[in-house]
Amino acid sequence: MLEPLAHIGRDPATGGYLRDAWSAADMELREWFAGEAARRGLDLREDRNGNLWAWWGDPSRRPGVVTGSHLDSVRQGGAYDGPLGVVSAFAALDLLRARGLDPSVPLGVACFTDEEGARFGVPCMGSRLLTGVLDPGRALALTDDEGDTLADVLARAGREPHGLGRDDETLATVGTFVELHVEQGRGLVTEGRPVGVAQAIWPHGRWRFDFRGRADHAGTTRLADRDDPMLPFARMVLAAREAAARRGVVATVGKVRVSPGNANAVPGLVSAWLDARGADEHAVRALVAELAELSGLAGFSGLAELSEPAGAADGTGGPGVSVREESWTPVVDFDTALRDRLAGIAGGDTPAPILPTGAGHDAGILATAGIPSAMLFVRNPTGVSHSPDEHAERADCEAGVVALADVLEDLCR
Amino acid sequence: MLEPLAHIGRDPATGGYLRDAWSAADMELREWFAGEAARRGLDLREDRNGNLWAWWGDPSRRPGVVTGSHLDSVRQGGAYDGPLGVVSAFAALDLLRARGLDPSVPLGVACFTDEEGARFGVPCMGSRLLTGVLDPGRALALTDDEGDTLADVLARAGREPHGLGRDDETLATVGTFVELHVEQGRGLVTEGRPVGVAQAIWPHGRWRFDFRGRADHAGTTRLADRDDPMLPFARMVLAAREAAARRGVVATVGKVRVSPGNANAVPGLVSAWLDARGADEHAVRALVAELAELSGLAGFSGLAELSEPAGAADGTGGPGVSVREESWTPVVDFDTALRDRLAGIAGGDTPAPILPTGAGHDAGILATAGIPSAMLFVRNPTGVSHSPDEHAERADCEAGVVALADVLEDLCR
Repeated sequence: MLEPLAHIGRDPATGGYLRDAWSAADMELREWFAGEAARRGLDLREDRNGNLWAWWGDPSRRPGVVTGSHLDSVRQGGAYDGPLGVVSAFAALDLLRARGLDPSVPLGVACFTDEEGARFGVPCMGSRLLTGVLDPGRALALTDDEGDTLADVLARAGREPHGLGRDDETLATVGTFVELHVEQGRGLVTEGRPVGVAQAIWPHGRWRFDFRGRADHAGTTRLADRDDPMLPFARMVLAAREAAARRGVVATVGKVRVSPGNANAVPGLVSAWLDARGADEHAVRALVAELAELSGLAGFSGLAELSEPAGAADGTGGPGVSVREESWTPVVDFDTALRDRLAGIAGGDTPAPILPTGAGHDAGILATAGIPSAMLFVRNPTGVSHSPDEHAERADCEAGVVALADVLEDLCR
Repeated sequence: MLEPLAHIGRDPATGGYLRDAWSAADMELREWFAGEAARRGLDLREDRNGNLWAWWGDPSRRPGVVTGSHLDSVRQGGAYDGPLGVVSAFAALDLLRARGLDPSVPLGVACFTDEEGARFGVPCMGSRLLTGVLDPGRALALTDDEGDTLADVLARAGREPHGLGRDDETLATVGTFVELHVEQGRGLVTEGRPVGVAQAIWPHGRWRFDFRGRADHAGTTRLADRDDPMLPFARMVLAAREAAARRGVVATVGKVRVSPGNANAVPGLVSAWLDARGADEHAVRALVAELAELSGLAGFSGLAELSEPAGAADGTGGPGVSVREESWTPVVDFDTALRDRLAGIAGGDTPAPILPTGAGHDAGILATAGIPSAMLFVRNPTGVSHSPDEHAERADCEAGVVALADVLEDLCR
């Protein structure tokens, strides 16, 4: 099913995908989406925030049932995270037409923009902007690794940067949202089932730590004369793991920028992104507060000055440490009635298992905005995701399409 | 004096310089060098390794006296490291002509290619290739951050990659080499003198540590199921500082690459470059051996498998750690007679101070190859180098030119 997309944005050296939002690969994926919509006679719309909608029926008359996911990837990601949900949406629609369904409500296929946040650091950008939980001014000022702002990037892609923001007209078209996604854990392997239903999304967030020191020569600067930000950064990494284990949450430092990044120079700035999640919001918050406090202690940092207060800093100024929250998503409990209805339909004879997840999704953003939303998971034999090794068996993907079609048929009655 | 070069490769945001070898900025600097040579009626040559030579007189008849330095920079480097030596060389030649000197030997101004190694990771590339201490095959296979090899880059610059390697014809033209350089420490501030002479260059080297783990989802992978290479990397950073202090050397981790580098993914690979130097070669070697051994211990790394033997690995394969030596330069003791002669001439009434340095230079590579070589240092008020804050006072730079001219005049007798 994913074959037509297999070559787009694929790194031949690793087999991983590079599908940053608004990159050439992303534009090709958007073209593919438009082609699939046209082939089925669906009405294609791009909303003001860059999200794509393909409609069977007219959602301006009454809210529709929408399914879909995203097509962008993390860097060096797998083939399934996102695209499986979009491809399965089109396939389920085809199946419903083959069954002769005449839906009583409009049926939509959605593709959300920049779900992963690989380029600008904020995940679920498209759905956050749509629902108004992300300020458009803040979004437009975000920069990518090249220093280009989202405003620059949108303008180059021929989009109107000033169109960004909460879009009630589009939100009014979405009566119910169902997202199918490859599971990013081994819950369904344990259950021995191909398809499951999401219970809740853990609260999760992302924080940027800027350790500022003073760039200097690696050969001629005495150890005692250095303000080397690599040291407090390293201490933070180790403290994060220890505190996460102690508090029963997960914490990850997966992205680091070292400036100037010369092998023969003491760095002037180390920026590190901390991702933290867990079932208990208080435990996640306490972890971040603990690390921010630790990083700000002179004895911990080894830097010349104490940190500015957490949240206040912009990564400039003299030696010190600053911490800024880049995103925060509280716990998302999906609509219980909808969830149980899906589990009953998607499971065949026995209700599908209901599983919690540590991963964020556009469905979670819509649920938080008050739209009845739910998720279907397809079994992942290894549980590995955000990696070229991510995989789902063909038979399980097909079971996912059938389950999604059954759910949509029920919701469209 | 450096004004005509001030704009080339300058980052307007920081004031630091980005002058990678063979970049657009470097090509502009090479054009500038050619123009300065032409303006003075000097004979310009580019050797097979990309080093530039501007000759007053014909060095094919008898070996000449050469002065110069390099024009490339570390990333976000200062204006003086390299260019001061080249600009001072031309200025000293002008001063000698103004004095009416008719040199009895050819006088050359040299500009060495890729002294900093910012792009390909190996410093003093031009002089190492020229003298044959760097294997051309190994050099051509080095890659930059874009994954381009030196062979690709040279071909694009219109150079013949297969011309690289030891060049006896060019070496035979260099009877004596004198490099003027901004000091990268505060020795001359302590001495209260504008100009000094180099005693020796500390032994120094660069090692690449590849910590290989397994990329995975930051939200759904339990801590216990992770092979996160960020953790052993962080432990290595802290161990390097502790061991350097204990052994009386300096050690720096200034360059790090995290792959895939997603904020929401456990990384699969962390590559870190360790720069280590000190007066005592054995202490430097022992430091690196200690860190390589530590990194290879399962308890230290937390990774699933033990390291491959140091020096054997290529950064691929299953979880583990590998260490590879990228460059090593033994102690360089400059020619004692030449050094003392320079100190006597450059110091005016009182011999110029003689200082050791932890920084590598092309003069050190030539000295090791058996060419009588020496260095002059110009006072650096803060000692800061490899940073936009690098500085030298105008009067001290002028004193450097006069000292260099006096030295050249003496050597050309």
